Amino acid sequence: MAQQHLDPTDPTAGPAPTGDALAVYLRAQATEFLRALRQYRETGTAPGTAEGSVEATRALRRSVRRISASLHTYRPLLDADWSEVLRPELAWLSGTLSMEHAYAARLERLLLALQRLSGAAVFPVQSGVTMGDRASEAVQLTAPHANAGPPSATPDRGNLTVGAAKAGALLERQLTLARTRAHSTALQALGSSRFHAVADTIAVLASEVPLTPTAPTADLRPLAAAAEERLTDAVAALPLVTAGHPYNAAALVHGLSPDPAPHPQDAPWHQVRLLLRLHRYAREALYGDKASLDVRLLTAGQALHRHRDASEAAAAAASAARTPRIAPATAYALGVLHADQRHEVEAARFAFQQCWQKQVVST
Amino acid sequence: MAQQHLDPTDPTAGPAPTGDALAVYLRAQATEFLRALRQYRETGTAPGTAEGSVEATRALRRSVRRISASLHTYRPLLDADWSEVLRPELAWLSGTLSMEHAYAARLERLLLALQRLSGAAVFPVQSGVTMGDRASEAVQLTAPHANAGPPSATPDRGNLTVGAAKAGALLERQLTLARTRAHSTALQALGSSRFHAVADTIAVLASEVPLTPTAPTADLRPLAAAAEERLTDAVAALPLVTAGHPYNAAALVHGLSPDPAPHPQDAPWHQVRLLLRLHRYAREALYGDKASLDVRLLTAGQALHRHRDASEAAAAAASAARTPRIAPATAYALGVLHADQRHEVEAARFAFQQCWQKQVVST
Repeated sequence: MAQQHLDPTDPTAGPAPTGDALAVYLRAQATEFLRALRQYRETGTAPGTAEGSVEATRALRRSVRRISASLHTYRPLLDADWSEVLRPELAWLSGTLSMEHAYAARLERLLLALQRLSGAAVFPVQSGVTMGDRASEAVQLTAPHANAGPPSATPDRGNLTVGAAKAGALLERQLTLARTRAHSTALQALGSSRFHAVADTIAVLASEVPLTPTAPTADLRPLAAAAEERLTDAVAALPLVTAGHPYNAAALVHGLSPDPAPHPQDAPWHQVRLLLRLHRYAREALYGDKASLDVRLLTAGQALHRHRDASEAAAAAASAARTPRIAPATAYALGVLHADQRHEVEAARFAFQQCWQKQVVST
Repeated sequence: MAQQHLDPTDPTAGPAPTGDALAVYLRAQATEFLRALRQYRETGTAPGTAEGSVEATRALRRSVRRISASLHTYRPLLDADWSEVLRPELAWLSGTLSMEHAYAARLERLLLALQRLSGAAVFPVQSGVTMGDRASEAVQLTAPHANAGPPSATPDRGNLTVGAAKAGALLERQLTLARTRAHSTALQALGSSRFHAVADTIAVLASEVPLTPTAPTADLRPLAAAAEERLTDAVAALPLVTAGHPYNAAALVHGLSPDPAPHPQDAPWHQVRLLLRLHRYAREALYGDKASLDVRLLTAGQALHRHRDASEAAAAAASAARTPRIAPATAYALGVLHADQRHEVEAARFAFQQCWQKQVVST
């Protein structure tokens, strides 16, 4: 992004960051992991500390994502054997720890949508609520529908129709069950010897980063630039022209498709979300906290989070509609809900396109 | 619209149009009515002439709308007793003749949408097909989704899911029944003594327009300006700021509302559609064919037609979902379809806002 060279607060100013800076970054993330793990162990087992436990799990995921991303982006600068062993373990841990939160956020998103669709919403023109730790990493979009209300707002079912209420109850049953299972799986994972091995590796990483012999003085920027290039290449392959036309109706094209995996169109967007995160963390390793102040990257990331959340929520509504023996009114409400979330998918693509276009234009 | 005074092809150039111009316009419309009636009688009863009959009915409606609008806008210039008797008769005739076409267009819109939602559409990114005689009066919107395919495209059910196919069959049954009834009602109306009385009045109008004594030299423009002012006042009351934000999710707010008439939000838009038509016909009386070349008025009108069509199609899908003993898969498809059409409502409002804003900006 060339415009950064014109910016007086340019984080890229100063001497070239080297492998030493990467080591500082990895040690800091490893220390953060150990702090979160200590917090988790202190709060996780005591009664009435569920919130602290959620907070600790979130911090664990946060540091795991960053270590994992650094191993990916800066692979040539790190001991290959060490890195090859650790990377799949971090992916397993990150995936296992994220599921409980994902189910909870999905249920909250769907119940809020049902409420809004029933005209009973507290925030009538709003959709695209970003919840939980995603909100903490995200900035508000400028679009009016992104003015998210308090994430902790409890949906009120008072004014729902029978269909909407039944759909809400069905989703709550299904997603709460999934969440409970994910919680047990995460608990088991955190008590496993597999996890203890990962934690030991990270404990060592907090004091000693296995850089290659030439890494300490190697310039990090070419590797960071390669991560950015992978992102821009993937963005260039997105259908941004379509996405930039409001109400293009593309996201719902397969809304009633007989295809059991009807939304392959979402995959390139999910891929860009991951590449954007890698790019963001690569910049963090280079420039520290200053890198995370790039509002446009955060906004683009938020749009892609919203895309992913809406895509998964739409799938959950479609899946619930395949439950045997549901009432037609329930199925109808789930159909409306599915289409509403696919519309959110389309809105998120539009928001991303607008945000990305601004970046390109201001270059 | 002040910018017209800067336009070298300005239709308002030249001497002030008077009541005499109104008489010319009304005689022309009455002649057109008689021609269409003759065509209807020649083709309506012969076998294999259904298309000619549809064309004749369309021409009848077209002239009736214009005579009716002129009686409204230019009321002070026309004999009051004559006008008071004729106006409700024209409203009855216009309403009766339009129902058959409306049901046919609604069914076509819904079946095309089902096809698109099943990923089986011939025109995948398209929605907002404008059909039948509405298309003939309308220009294409610039938005990509308005690139309507051939209006006569026959929906192909080959690739629909069970739910979509059943929903399509249900809608076809219900709307074909309604259409058949509307056809019978229109046939009865055209054979009734009530219709013959209207036709006789219009036959007289074709040669003799009952102007008031002072009307022939009266300036038409203040009355036309009043019609325009009613339009601009109604537009000013629309929620155009919301409509101008893509994906505001406002149109679906009551998608699952327990309210049996859940879309009072559509009413002001329907009202603007009628006022826009009155304004357009008022200009025709003033400036003849040149007035109908105002592309922006046509585009705004098309957006409002699409708004009305999508609103009614969404209501038809919701109504079909209340059919007793339908399968959950059918209800689900109808829910998706309802939400899709409500998104079309939102898209049409956005298109109108964009078009109207352009008018205001270019003034």
